[in-house]
Amino acid sequence: MPDPTAADPTLELTQQLMRQASVTPDDANCQKMMADRLSQLGFHIEPMRFGDVDNLWARRGTSGPVLVFAGHTDVVPTGPLERWHSDPFAPAIRDGHLFGRGAADMKASLAAFITATEAFVADHPNHKGSIAFLITSDEEGPAKDGTVKVIEALTERGETLDYCIVGEPTSSEQFGDMIKNGRRGSLSGHLTVHGVQGHIAYPHLARNPIHMLAPALAELTETEWDHGNEYFPPTTWQVSNMHSGTGATNVIPGTVEVLFNFRFSTENTADTLKEKLEGILQRHGVEYDLEWSLSGEPYLTGTGDLVDAMQAAIEEETGVRPVLSTTGGTSDGRFIAKHCAQVIEFGPLNATIHKLNECVAVDHLPKLSGVYRRALEKLIA
Amino acid sequence: MPDPTAADPTLELTQQLMRQASVTPDDANCQKMMADRLSQLGFHIEPMRFGDVDNLWARRGTSGPVLVFAGHTDVVPTGPLERWHSDPFAPAIRDGHLFGRGAADMKASLAAFITATEAFVADHPNHKGSIAFLITSDEEGPAKDGTVKVIEALTERGETLDYCIVGEPTSSEQFGDMIKNGRRGSLSGHLTVHGVQGHIAYPHLARNPIHMLAPALAELTETEWDHGNEYFPPTTWQVSNMHSGTGATNVIPGTVEVLFNFRFSTENTADTLKEKLEGILQRHGVEYDLEWSLSGEPYLTGTGDLVDAMQAAIEEETGVRPVLSTTGGTSDGRFIAKHCAQVIEFGPLNATIHKLNECVAVDHLPKLSGVYRRALEKLIA
Repeated sequence: MPDPTAADPTLELTQQLMRQASVTPDDANCQKMMADRLSQLGFHIEPMRFGDVDNLWARRGTSGPVLVFAGHTDVVPTGPLERWHSDPFAPAIRDGHLFGRGAADMKASLAAFITATEAFVADHPNHKGSIAFLITSDEEGPAKDGTVKVIEALTERGETLDYCIVGEPTSSEQFGDMIKNGRRGSLSGHLTVHGVQGHIAYPHLARNPIHMLAPALAELTETEWDHGNEYFPPTTWQVSNMHSGTGATNVIPGTVEVLFNFRFSTENTADTLKEKLEGILQRHGVEYDLEWSLSGEPYLTGTGDLVDAMQAAIEEETGVRPVLSTTGGTSDGRFIAKHCAQVIEFGPLNATIHKLNECVAVDHLPKLSGVYRRALEKLIA
Repeated sequence: MPDPTAADPTLELTQQLMRQASVTPDDANCQKMMADRLSQLGFHIEPMRFGDVDNLWARRGTSGPVLVFAGHTDVVPTGPLERWHSDPFAPAIRDGHLFGRGAADMKASLAAFITATEAFVADHPNHKGSIAFLITSDEEGPAKDGTVKVIEALTERGETLDYCIVGEPTSSEQFGDMIKNGRRGSLSGHLTVHGVQGHIAYPHLARNPIHMLAPALAELTETEWDHGNEYFPPTTWQVSNMHSGTGATNVIPGTVEVLFNFRFSTENTADTLKEKLEGILQRHGVEYDLEWSLSGEPYLTGTGDLVDAMQAAIEEETGVRPVLSTTGGTSDGRFIAKHCAQVIEFGPLNATIHKLNECVAVDHLPKLSGVYRRALEKLIA
């Protein structure tokens, strides 16, 4: 068995990218490193900076279909440095794993995109259609000046996308076991219930907003919003924060503030959920203000070319048959799906992402590159 | 009609007491001023200091029945001085009212106790039984080293009390319209509901304590604890504070904290309320910790000598027939009632107490003294 630390180009590039402390929104030169490699393969390189966010759009070929590799160079903060076993920006190999911030989320995937493309282009210099890279540096942050803006720019100039593979770490228990073929929507609300403040000894002169809300809150927690569907688990509703009262124990508060969030399937839309929730509040006679914030529409890629190609590629490379899933948080896939009919996400194990001592298995790196290369072959060889 | 500002001894003593800035627990020499007057009437003077609280016990006579005037020299803080129309500790008369902190709560009553006693003793130097004064300087504060400690000391040495008139400002719409012949109990709880913290996108891995609590909270707000009785309004339950969540909008919180308070009638006890409330939490499967704090047992003085005497005294002096009431907050009456079968509260209008520009009507002062004097005559002449 060859020594992977010496020979694997995906490991080498992953390490190079990990040495750049690219905490959101700082790209720290990662996109330049990627662009240099792509440039050598004949890609047209187009940096797109919006606000303080660096984005990279790179494309090889002018015809369709267009297969896009999408991802982000930014990483989340390290947390307390003294609790890392080694410097998070000095990638270190121990026990068959490469440790450091961004190892799994998602510098390994970025490196594998590049090495897969290099291998594919070497074999198929005159491939069909186009290969493109859509890389941002604010996926972990506000996500306002990244992928969403690049997609807007591409849409405006009529540049169409056909397939998109997002390199998010989707593997759950073993490498290759899960593809995300969609994500639930995320809809948040900031509810303020208005009562009338007063002395606790004279409740008939006050109106306690917690008491006004209680029956509606009970109904909201018990509501089945939908039953999900073939691809999505049922929509969930959760309160994240609830605050009322100033600390005084003899005062009935005047208001209560509630922050909540829906994670929703394609069986609902933001509008149907808003209507149902406000209907419950109104039926209970709650006096309220409510600010809604839609952080992500749900997206879904049903069975089709891209899912078939990825499932086959993964099974051939790893021997594992991946399941399709739409669980978990949001990803930039939600922005791309507005402009690209088929979007899936696939990458390494996500057990350590955003945590101390984030890592990726060294022997998964060439396999990850292999999966992406096989997908290219199946779709645009 | 005589000029009341020149002639009324109750007004003069009220003003003297109001010039002392006796913010809790500082008596600021008020008790000394009262003791000097009582001493001249032959009272036995007994200062009782507990912790940093000055208390005064003074008694004239050695036999029963013992009629006690009870009250406090301490006042609540002024609040923002610039919003007072005149210095709160420089009593000023405007528009027939005496303005300043403590005017209504309760230096007018203290002065009226003294002038009523002076007039009564002048007419009845050999009255029946005893007259006593139980004066504290921490009624507005923690109420730990005041009346409750004096009552303990009197109980320990076997000194019995028969009638007690507390000088709290009980008049509501017009002077003389209300006597308090009891007070509701006050029972507080600090409830912590335990869930399991988690990411809002994975609610099946968490347990939202707000959601666990919601159905129980709805039931608690709708529960009728009792229907009250002849003397008490129904028991009420109110949440004063409710806090959950760290501000992060993607995290299901691990706990929710709820502060609540019962104001309860004699149809319940602290124990029956604890049992009913915890029964509801348990029936809903809520996992919780609960710290109870009983700040006052209810007390009640039914019809009898003291109520009859006070109602007659008030009607004769003011032409107003007072109603009996047990509403409002707690008072030191709750401590005295443990050792004295008949306790009532009567004093001036309470509309301005604890507020900016607290005041008392100048022409109510001699009437207040007259009411107390008539009560002495009816009970121990």
